[in-house]
Amino acid sequence: MDIDLNSDLGESFGTWRLGDDAAVLDVVTSANVACGFHAGDPRTLLSTCERAVAAGVVIGAQVGYRDLPGFGRRFIDYESADLVADLLYQLGALEGLARVAGGRVRYVKPHGALYNTIVHHEQQAAAVVEAVTRFDASLPVLGLPGSVFLAAAERAGLRTVAEAFVDRAYTPAGTLVSRREPGAVLHDPDLVAARMVRLVTRGELDAIDGSVVTVRADSLCVHGDSPGAVGMARAVRDALESAGLTVRSFT
Amino acid sequence: MDIDLNSDLGESFGTWRLGDDAAVLDVVTSANVACGFHAGDPRTLLSTCERAVAAGVVIGAQVGYRDLPGFGRRFIDYESADLVADLLYQLGALEGLARVAGGRVRYVKPHGALYNTIVHHEQQAAAVVEAVTRFDASLPVLGLPGSVFLAAAERAGLRTVAEAFVDRAYTPAGTLVSRREPGAVLHDPDLVAARMVRLVTRGELDAIDGSVVTVRADSLCVHGDSPGAVGMARAVRDALESAGLTVRSFT
Amino acid sequence: MDIDLNSDLGESFGTWRLGDDAAVLDVVTSANVACGFHAGDPRTLLSTCERAVAAGVVIGAQVGYRDLPGFGRRFIDYESADLVADLLYQLGALEGLARVAGGRVRYVKPHGALYNTIVHHEQQAAAVVEAVTRFDASLPVLGLPGSVFLAAAERAGLRTVAEAFVDRAYTPAGTLVSRREPGAVLHDPDLVAARMVRLVTRGELDAIDGSVVTVRADSLCVHGDSPGAVGMARAVRDALESAGLTVRSFT
Amino acid sequence: MDIDLNSDLGESFGTWRLGDDAAVLDVVTSANVACGFHAGDPRTLLSTCERAVAAGVVIGAQVGYRDLPGFGRRFIDYESADLVADLLYQLGALEGLARVAGGRVRYVKPHGALYNTIVHHEQQAAAVVEAVTRFDASLPVLGLPGSVFLAAAERAGLRTVAEAFVDRAYTPAGTLVSRREPGAVLHDPDLVAARMVRLVTRGELDAIDGSVVTVRADSLCVHGDSPGAVGMARAVRDALESAGLTVRSFT
Repeated sequence: MDIDLNSDLGESFGTWRLGDDAAVLDVVTSANVACGFHAGDPRTLLSTCERAVAAGVVIGAQVGYRDLPGFGRRFIDYESADLVADLLYQLGALEGLARVAGGRVRYVKPHGALYNTIVHHEQQAAAVVEAVTRFDASLPVLGLPGSVFLAAAERAGLRTVAEAFVDRAYTPAGTLVSRREPGAVLHDPDLVAARMVRLVTRGELDAIDGSVVTVRADSLCVHGDSPGAVGMARAVRDALESAGLTVRSFT
Repeated sequence: MDIDLNSDLGESFGTWRLGDDAAVLDVVTSANVACGFHAGDPRTLLSTCERAVAAGVVIGAQVGYRDLPGFGRRFIDYESADLVADLLYQLGALEGLARVAGGRVRYVKPHGALYNTIVHHEQQAAAVVEAVTRFDASLPVLGLPGSVFLAAAERAGLRTVAEAFVDRAYTPAGTLVSRREPGAVLHDPDLVAARMVRLVTRGELDAIDGSVVTVRADSLCVHGDSPGAVGMARAVRDALESAGLTVRSFT
Repeated sequence: MDIDLNSDLGESFGTWRLGDDAAVLDVVTSANVACGFHAGDPRTLLSTCERAVAAGVVIGAQVGYRDLPGFGRRFIDYESADLVADLLYQLGALEGLARVAGGRVRYVKPHGALYNTIVHHEQQAAAVVEAVTRFDASLPVLGLPGSVFLAAAERAGLRTVAEAFVDRAYTPAGTLVSRREPGAVLHDPDLVAARMVRLVTRGELDAIDGSVVTVRADSLCVHGDSPGAVGMARAVRDALESAGLTVRSFT
Repeated sequence: MDIDLNSDLGESFGTWRLGDDAAVLDVVTSANVACGFHAGDPRTLLSTCERAVAAGVVIGAQVGYRDLPGFGRRFIDYESADLVADLLYQLGALEGLARVAGGRVRYVKPHGALYNTIVHHEQQAAAVVEAVTRFDASLPVLGLPGSVFLAAAERAGLRTVAEAFVDRAYTPAGTLVSRREPGAVLHDPDLVAARMVRLVTRGELDAIDGSVVTVRADSLCVHGDSPGAVGMARAVRDALESAGLTVRSFT
C-alpha cells in the first residue's frame, strides 16, 4: 500500500527566506513548488526545482492568487478569464523552470485562499479546472476530498488526488475543524503519526468529538516552516514505513 | 528574397491599453509578445497569442527586466543568476500561453533597456544567451547587428537574426543615431519605405551624414503604438511587396 | 445653492496613460487623486497634484486595494489591520505629494471595489473609518448615501459627503441600478444635465421605473476617461451654472 | 560627547520576516525604517513606528529603489523626475505612519544600492537632495563621509550626518574596503567595540593596512539581522557608555 507525502516549497522571495526546503525534500515525495504569484522569485523556484530533481521528489505547481503582500491568503474576487490566464501563466513559468532543471510539472495544487475558496466556490473551481485542462489535461490535481473543486475536476476528466492534513483535527462530517476553533491544530508527533497510519491503512480517523470518521487520502500534507513541523513530517514518514507502507509519489 | 517584419505586442497591462495590436497583426510576420515582467498581464498575453495564431503571425518572447513601473526601460544591474532565472520564468510563462493558444514561442527578442544594455554589456548578454540556451537552444534570437549579444549568441551556437529599425537614422558606422540627436527618428512613410527596399535588396542605406553604410537586416522592426506608426509599417510592407520581395517570418 | 463636481484623476501608471486629466481639471472642483495602490505612479501623482493646485481644484485621496493588475476593481478579503495600514500608507503618501505641490489632501474617497464593498461590508467600512480617523479626523469622506460606510463615518464623528453619479440610473429605492441591467448607464448629456439640475435643486430624480425618488447629493461624480465623458461633465456643469447654482468644492 | 547608533528596521514584507526589530530597538537611538519600496509592508511599518516611539528611538526614513524582488540592492538607472517622485512618495507614506504612531520622520537615510550609488553618482545624489529639500528642508540626511551625496546636501543647505560602519574595515583613504576583499567585514565584538570608542573619542581608526586614518562619524551603523549582529551592537553600546560617552540621537 502506497501513500504520498506533499509539502509546500519554494516560498521564499528575494532576500526573504521561508521554510527549510532542504529538510523537507528529505522527507516528502511531492513538492508543491510556488509559482511566483503569491511567493517564489524565479531564482528560488529554479533552484527549488533543481533540488527536487536531485532528491527524486516529484514537482507540482502550487498556483495561487497574484498577491505577494498577502501571500495568496486573501480571497480575491477574480473574473474567470483573469484567473484562468493567471493560472496558465504560472503553470507555464514553473513548467519552464522544471524542464530546465531536468524535471516536469507533474501535478497541480492550488495554494492558500484559492485552495480554500474552491472547496465551495463554483466559479473559481471551474476556472482552475479549465486552466489545468487547457494546459495539460493529463495532470492530476490535488485538493480536499468533498470539495467542489475535486468534483468539477472529476467531471472534466482530470485525475484527482485527495489529501489529508497531518496536523489538523476533523469534524464528524470529515471536513477540517476551523483554525479558529480550539483543538483545530495537532502538535504531538507521535499521536499524529499513529493517526496517519490508521488513516492510510483503514481510511478512518477520530473526529474532534471522538467519533470515527471515514476520510479518503491519496496524499498527506506536511509542513516545513518550523523545526517542529519538519520533525512531525519525519515522524509521520517513519511511522508509515514502520507499518509496512510505501511512501511514494502518486504520479 | 525574403524579409521579416517584427513589432512589439501584448504590452497592455490590466485596465491600461497600449498599442493597436489588431492593426499590427495585419501587417507584421513576427510578434514580439511581452512576457509580463515589463508589460503584459496574463489575460492580455493569452489573447495576444490567440490572435497571433489566428493571423498566422509567428510568436516571439519579448523578455525584459522585472520593472512594470519603468516599463523595462531602465537599466537594472542584475546578478547573472537572477537575470537568467527571470528570463527563464518569462520564457516558460509565454511558452505555456502560446501552446494553449495553439502556437509556440519561436524566437526571443529582449526588450527596452535590456535590449540596449546587451549591445555592449558582456555579463547581461551572456545571461540572455545562457537563458535561451538552457530553455531551448533551437530558438533564434533577434538583436542589433554588431552587438555583443549577437556575437555571444553566435559563439554559443544560437541562430541570430539581425534587425534594422525602419524609423531610425544610422551613423556612418552602421549604428543607431541616439534619440537625443536631431534627425534620429524618421517620420516620412514614403522615404522610409524606399529606404527599407534598398536596405533589403542591396544591404545598404544612407547614413545621417549622407554617406552610404552597409547594414545587415534579416528583420525590420516596426511600431504600432500610434496610427502614424501603423501607417508607416503598412507603407513599408507595401513597398517591399511591390519591389517583388516576400514578407515572411525568418523561422 | 452650492454643488461639488468630483472625478477620478491620476490613474495613469508609468508608460500607461488613462483619462484626460487636463480636460477634467477644467470642469471639476474636486479631484479624487489615486494613491498608487490601484493606479498612479508617484511622478504622475505629483504632477496631478501640481496641476490640481494650479487649477484651483481641491485634492482628495482616492484610496484603494493594493491591486495594480486588477485596478482595484476586485474585492480582496483583507484583515482589518492590513487594510487600515494600507490606507494610512496611501493617505500619507498622497499628503506628502500634495504638500510638495502646494496643496493638501482635503477629503477621502475610496475607489472601485473598496467603494462598492463598504456600501454593505461592516468590517471594511470600519477599517476605512478607522484609517481616516487616525490619519486626520477633520477630513470629510465621500461615499454613497445609505451606505454602511457613511453611517459608520457619521457615528465616528467624521463629516460625510454624499455623492450621486451623473450617468447612472437609480432604483425606486434610491440605489444604483446594477451595470448588468439594461438602462443602467445614461448617455445623453442634455438629459443627464437636466436631471442633475433637478437633483441638486429639488433633491429628487426619476428612477428607472419612472417613479420619483429622493436622493441626497453633496457632490456629483463625473468621468474623464473618454471624450464623451468629458463632454457630459461639461454639459452638467454648464446646466448647473445656468440654473444659478454655484459649482464649488464642499470643503 | 554624544554619539548616535542607527540600524535598519521594518524590513519584513507580509509573511516574510527579517531582522529582530525588538532587540535592535533596545540598543539603537535611530531607526532607519523602510518605506515600502524595497521592503516593509504598511502594517509592518506602522507597528515598527509604534514600537520605535514606545522605545524612545528616533524614526528616520530609509528610502530606496522601487524593487522588492531585489530588496533595493540593484542599481536602477532612474530618470531624475521619477526618482524624486518615488522618494517623495516614500517620505510622505512613512511620515503619515510615523505621525499616526505618535512620532515624526526626523531624518532620511538612503538604502542599499541607492546609498552606494550616490557615493559617486551626481544625478541620483541631486535627486535625493531635491526630494528631501522639497519634502522638508529641515530634515538631516545620513550618508557616507566624503560622498557626492553629502557634499550636494551641504551645498543645498541640508544638515548632514556622517556615519561609520561598526563591522567594516577601512582603506587608508578612509573609504570602506569592498566586501569582495578579504578582511572587509569584522566579526569580533570586543575589537569592534574598542575600535568604535577610539573612532568617536579621537576621530581615527586603524585602516586595513595598519595605518591610522581619520574618519568623521556622527552616527554608527549597526545591524540586527542575526543574533551575532545584535550582540555586536550591544557590545559597541556598552563600550561607548563605559567610556563615558552618551549614546543618543543626533536630532
